Amino acid sequence: MTRQLFDLVGTDDSRPFSPYCWRTRMALAHKGLDVESVPWRFTEKERIAPHGSEKVPVLLDGEVTVADSWAIANYLEDTYPERPSLFGGEGGRAMARMMNWIGDVTIVGGIFPLIVADIHGHLLPVDQAYFRQSREARLGKSLEAAAEPRDKQVESFRKSLDPMRLTFRTQPYLGGAAPNYADYIMFGGFQWARVTSPFRLLKEDDPVYAWRERLLDAFDGLARRAPAIQQ
Amino acid sequence: MTRQLFDLVGTDDSRPFSPYCWRTRMALAHKGLDVESVPWRFTEKERIAPHGSEKVPVLLDGEVTVADSWAIANYLEDTYPERPSLFGGEGGRAMARMMNWIGDVTIVGGIFPLIVADIHGHLLPVDQAYFRQSREARLGKSLEAAAEPRDKQVESFRKSLDPMRLTFRTQPYLGGAAPNYADYIMFGGFQWARVTSPFRLLKEDDPVYAWRERLLDAFDGLARRAPAIQQ
Repeated sequence: MTRQLFDLVGTDDSRPFSPYCWRTRMALAHKGLDVESVPWRFTEKERIAPHGSEKVPVLLDGEVTVADSWAIANYLEDTYPERPSLFGGEGGRAMARMMNWIGDVTIVGGIFPLIVADIHGHLLPVDQAYFRQSREARLGKSLEAAAEPRDKQVESFRKSLDPMRLTFRTQPYLGGAAPNYADYIMFGGFQWARVTSPFRLLKEDDPVYAWRERLLDAFDGLARRAPAIQQ
Repeated sequence: MTRQLFDLVGTDDSRPFSPYCWRTRMALAHKGLDVESVPWRFTEKERIAPHGSEKVPVLLDGEVTVADSWAIANYLEDTYPERPSLFGGEGGRAMARMMNWIGDVTIVGGIFPLIVADIHGHLLPVDQAYFRQSREARLGKSLEAAAEPRDKQVESFRKSLDPMRLTFRTQPYLGGAAPNYADYIMFGGFQWARVTSPFRLLKEDDPVYAWRERLLDAFDGLARRAPAIQQ
């Protein structure tokens, strides 16, 4: 039976960009599990409603359906314990819960205003209308206004990465000598930006940039081979 | 042989307040290891110089000397593996490295300007001179100016706790169902403030406040029984 992942795309079926779906794609690769990416768009709510979710990622694994990237990571860890661990033990799983919130609040939340107008440009018209309305309500301003002046806004985003950056003084990955789910949480946000936006979030001499490069190369370049605005 | 911890104090030998020493005291309690707290003051550099450090915590464990709270946590985990784990496995140890930087940057760094003038009030005159000079150089302003207006500054500190706060929606501790070293890292900063300052960092309806209360009660109230400005 084919394992399937409902994966957020815009105009191009081959360009999944959701930061949460990327967490899941990297987690599946870490476990060595094949998956078929099923293109899904913002307004196709009815296609995933039978699976009990309004949002992706939604994973179909045989008879089992799991929605939400955090729930999927835990499902994969529990269902495939003989494969490489995503958390490296129960302490790692517990700490990854806060890491996941850092990924949501600091990484995705910090990147969001910087690239939101670019994301809009990648969507089909029907999704553009949905996206503009829902995101402008969240932002309290237009998509275009959110990103300005992003050259200045990005400075505080970069500053917010200090704890990650300092970690790389003594280990190459948040997971230690090799990446684990903590890395995929944060990486999802950077890949989201890379796929959808020409804006440079990181300077090339930043240790976070070097870490991102390593993850782009992971799993035979799974993330680097994905169609993206930035190479 | 008595296990000893050089522990930062001010005017009162019985009132250790360093956030880093508190990480270590909680870690030792977690491991069920007795320790004698050895009062040490900022300007007593020569007393710990023989142990290869200029700062505390410094732990003397039999023939072994270990300085730096992170190094001590790793030493305790490796030396007493049969006792309750501080990290809950190697994934937790790796993730705790970033947690430790969050503790330094977000927690200690965020609290520092809010309580720095109060800390000064707890020091002996010779330490006050050292503390004022070194900390004003770091702050680029007077200790008193750093804290003003702290009622406003504390809002952004509280906001920075969002990833912790959100974590407590689904688990009582950063370490999961029970505390581990990730909790002690963050808790050290709150205990530092509680011992030295009357300023209320947290609102009583904040889930972070409830978490702090639980840690104050841990190990038969080790941290709550310590002399402090706030009860």
